[in-house]
Amino acid sequence: MDRNLRNASLLVVILALGWRASATSTVAAAASVAQAREYAAANKDAFSRQLLDLASIASISALPQHNKDILKAADWLQQHLTSIGLENVQVLETEGPQPVVYADWLHAPGKPTVLVYGHYDVQPVDPLDLWASPPFEPQLQQMDDQSYFVGRGVDDDKGGLLQALQGVESFLRTSHSLPLNVKFILEGQEEIGSPNLEAFLIKHKAGLLAGIDMAISADGGQVAADQPGIGTGLRGAVAFEVEVSTAGMDLHSGMKGGSVQNANHALVALLASLKDADNRITVPGFYDDVATMAAEDKESVATFPFDKSAEQQALGVLGFMGEAGFGPLEHRWYRPTLEVVGMWGGFTGAGMKTVIPRVANAKLSCRLVPNMSPDDIASKVKSHLERKGAELLANVTVTVSGFRSYPWTSPRDTPGNVLSAGVLEQAMGKKPVYYRDGGTIPALAYFQQVLGLNSTIFAFGVGDHIHAPNERLLEHLFHTGRKAWVEYLAVLGDKLVGLLPPDAPVHAGSGVGRDEL
Amino acid sequence: MDRNLRNASLLVVILALGWRASATSTVAAAASVAQAREYAAANKDAFSRQLLDLASIASISALPQHNKDILKAADWLQQHLTSIGLENVQVLETEGPQPVVYADWLHAPGKPTVLVYGHYDVQPVDPLDLWASPPFEPQLQQMDDQSYFVGRGVDDDKGGLLQALQGVESFLRTSHSLPLNVKFILEGQEEIGSPNLEAFLIKHKAGLLAGIDMAISADGGQVAADQPGIGTGLRGAVAFEVEVSTAGMDLHSGMKGGSVQNANHALVALLASLKDADNRITVPGFYDDVATMAAEDKESVATFPFDKSAEQQALGVLGFMGEAGFGPLEHRWYRPTLEVVGMWGGFTGAGMKTVIPRVANAKLSCRLVPNMSPDDIASKVKSHLERKGAELLANVTVTVSGFRSYPWTSPRDTPGNVLSAGVLEQAMGKKPVYYRDGGTIPALAYFQQVLGLNSTIFAFGVGDHIHAPNERLLEHLFHTGRKAWVEYLAVLGDKLVGLLPPDAPVHAGSGVGRDEL
Repeated sequence: MDRNLRNASLLVVILALGWRASATSTVAAAASVAQAREYAAANKDAFSRQLLDLASIASISALPQHNKDILKAADWLQQHLTSIGLENVQVLETEGPQPVVYADWLHAPGKPTVLVYGHYDVQPVDPLDLWASPPFEPQLQQMDDQSYFVGRGVDDDKGGLLQALQGVESFLRTSHSLPLNVKFILEGQEEIGSPNLEAFLIKHKAGLLAGIDMAISADGGQVAADQPGIGTGLRGAVAFEVEVSTAGMDLHSGMKGGSVQNANHALVALLASLKDADNRITVPGFYDDVATMAAEDKESVATFPFDKSAEQQALGVLGFMGEAGFGPLEHRWYRPTLEVVGMWGGFTGAGMKTVIPRVANAKLSCRLVPNMSPDDIASKVKSHLERKGAELLANVTVTVSGFRSYPWTSPRDTPGNVLSAGVLEQAMGKKPVYYRDGGTIPALAYFQQVLGLNSTIFAFGVGDHIHAPNERLLEHLFHTGRKAWVEYLAVLGDKLVGLLPPDAPVHAGSGVGRDEL
Repeated sequence: MDRNLRNASLLVVILALGWRASATSTVAAAASVAQAREYAAANKDAFSRQLLDLASIASISALPQHNKDILKAADWLQQHLTSIGLENVQVLETEGPQPVVYADWLHAPGKPTVLVYGHYDVQPVDPLDLWASPPFEPQLQQMDDQSYFVGRGVDDDKGGLLQALQGVESFLRTSHSLPLNVKFILEGQEEIGSPNLEAFLIKHKAGLLAGIDMAISADGGQVAADQPGIGTGLRGAVAFEVEVSTAGMDLHSGMKGGSVQNANHALVALLASLKDADNRITVPGFYDDVATMAAEDKESVATFPFDKSAEQQALGVLGFMGEAGFGPLEHRWYRPTLEVVGMWGGFTGAGMKTVIPRVANAKLSCRLVPNMSPDDIASKVKSHLERKGAELLANVTVTVSGFRSYPWTSPRDTPGNVLSAGVLEQAMGKKPVYYRDGGTIPALAYFQQVLGLNSTIFAFGVGDHIHAPNERLLEHLFHTGRKAWVEYLAVLGDKLVGLLPPDAPVHAGSGVGRDEL
């Protein structure tokens, strides 16, 4: 056989095998989806127990004393991922104390490969006294006439990542196959801004994380229990620790008071200097790179169901306020912020101590919108604070904290969004709206920047108490989410290939799942 | 014997007895002063041990967990006062958990009666990490090339009150008598503003505290180790606890950030609203009752030894600042203040938590000058903060704390001041200057208001680290103080009667010490 003929024959064989695989898989796929649907619907109690179990681990990434709980949660996931039939399960080190839990299933030749993202770390729980039940004793509770899982992490993001895993489990435990290839990355640093994720992605880009066609975030949520939504963007973030010192020692408020700077006063003046009367941030150049809203953005704001007075009541605020010239949704979705997350100075115990404090501290965090850069904003805020400090007879130290993330967008026509729309409408009985989310998921911008991947958010929490006491997840949405994942995996397996650009790994021949060809 | 004759005879007898008592007492007094001087000079180590002993008790009045230490200190004093020969020693209840320790010695007929005041409670000790040695393990230390007692309370006011007691001890342990009558009031609430002292004085005014001619405060201090001074006034005070709340729960800084009020921002705006660019307090009516400086006041400021750059270095400040139009001494002595003593809000732990806090707090304290009233200022500050809060979409609660005191003055020609001048010059080798002290001793205004008494401050701390870490007292000034008390008691016994007004108890026949007549 000459070389050309041999090559031509090989091609025919390959195409034939491909056709056969495709033909049989269409039939098999229909059967396996039906089985997965049945399994997902039938095992409610076992699925609930998974959430109660994982959410009882106090995996708070912000507090070093909980590092052992971080490892405990990673260990729980490692065992769980293995038990549901995922393969190549690994707890991978990062440069921080929080590892990434990786797993894959790559036996769907010719099918695209999706990266599923979630995080198993949670926010701190204080103020503890405002919780209706202990934050790490998750439980079903009736609240506002509905049944909720209540506990730290039940929504953000242990509930989210478990819904994805339960969708996968529903396939693997029944037909022992998935409609497409999947790789899971479950990280433990999201709540501290994923400081080591970028380096992790760079390290594994050519290895474990090669050949991926798109990413799905199981972190995120829905607009409301009866209103699905597709998130088209998230804000980035950058955060600072500020220390102000004004004297060599605390001074007597009587003997020296009135003649020297007070660290609390300097901090108040410094923080007050960050905004003007219109609530615009006064840091020079802060708004330089802020993108103006496109027509699609204005439509999202106009069509989004936002009941101002109902939300005012739900949040317990006396009204809405913010940068002049914009409404609440614009403030949250399209405008950057600078918030004083925490501050403390001087005597904070019971009673009174008559001192002029020498030192005061604040924690600031900015949310960033396209096309702001966290490093650029960090440098501008730092310069402003240091310059102002000198005017106030105060030594000001500004440290950029690990919480740093780029803003991220996902246009409406992103393939994952196009395919999730129908699934969401079917699952929740209503057409989804398109919206931005003012929050931050650092991973999604890194997937874009490092791995070149578009991402779609696919998650089912309402997020009404996340990062706060009484974090909760509607019981029925938790179960809806799992079933929707079954449908989404099936639809992606069926239709994603046709929507992906020609240079996507599945087309370019660089995709995974080639081991069975 | 007719009634008139009998009365006349009685008068002769009384006068004769009085003359004899007076004649013998002049001789006896000279001898007893010499003995007291010798005793005061000879027992340095024992006197030091008293200070190290008393200052090792953590009698912090501001912190309820130290109430047992308050009682321990009162008990120590009760035993000590008894052991040095004072009489009628009692631990008297107040309406608070801190009792007053009372003692007297009233066997000097025809002599005036002085009330000696001190306090055995101390300030809290935080920040603990800035102490060179544990605050309640008082010890002699070399600092800045000098020998100091270092520990909480060694200066303010355990050192002060012990110097007075050691002066008395030096007489009572040698000649078993004093040159005049004394009553001691040692209280345990000074550092929290003596909230129950006014009621205590009212209760005992006609009983234990009747017949007093003047008061001496063993709380206070000197201008510098080589510069005596006579304090002609103190500021009053009033303090507030402020709570700001903006929402029903902590909110997610990403999802809601930019569109709702943040309790920290509201508190910052509220506190920033308290002063204008000239550092004048903007609370309406705040300065209404402030007395203008008299010629004597201006002279005090002009003649007071104040080395600006040396003090800047000692305090570790980058410069002096304050209300426009006044210098540092005027700021401290003649102008009122409003200081943020403490503040806290949101997440203050390690790391970052992405919340918009719903609640923030501050502790404020004002220093008041004549003729301001704490109640009037409390009402003005409260109104201002509550009005401002409404503009900020914040619920603001303002509570007036127990720290409340009237300003106090003691004119240069007050008898106690006239007589202390010579004693101070002799003890410290320099003529005293007249000055105000920006601090507050609530008792002195109450002695004036309730008991009608002028007070003189007679104390020997320099006060350079009081209310702060490394509170210290120059060892040699501690010993100087005791010897000066011996002289002051002698001079008061000798000359005070001649300087007192005709209606003073000793003249009006309502004084104490009548039991030996």
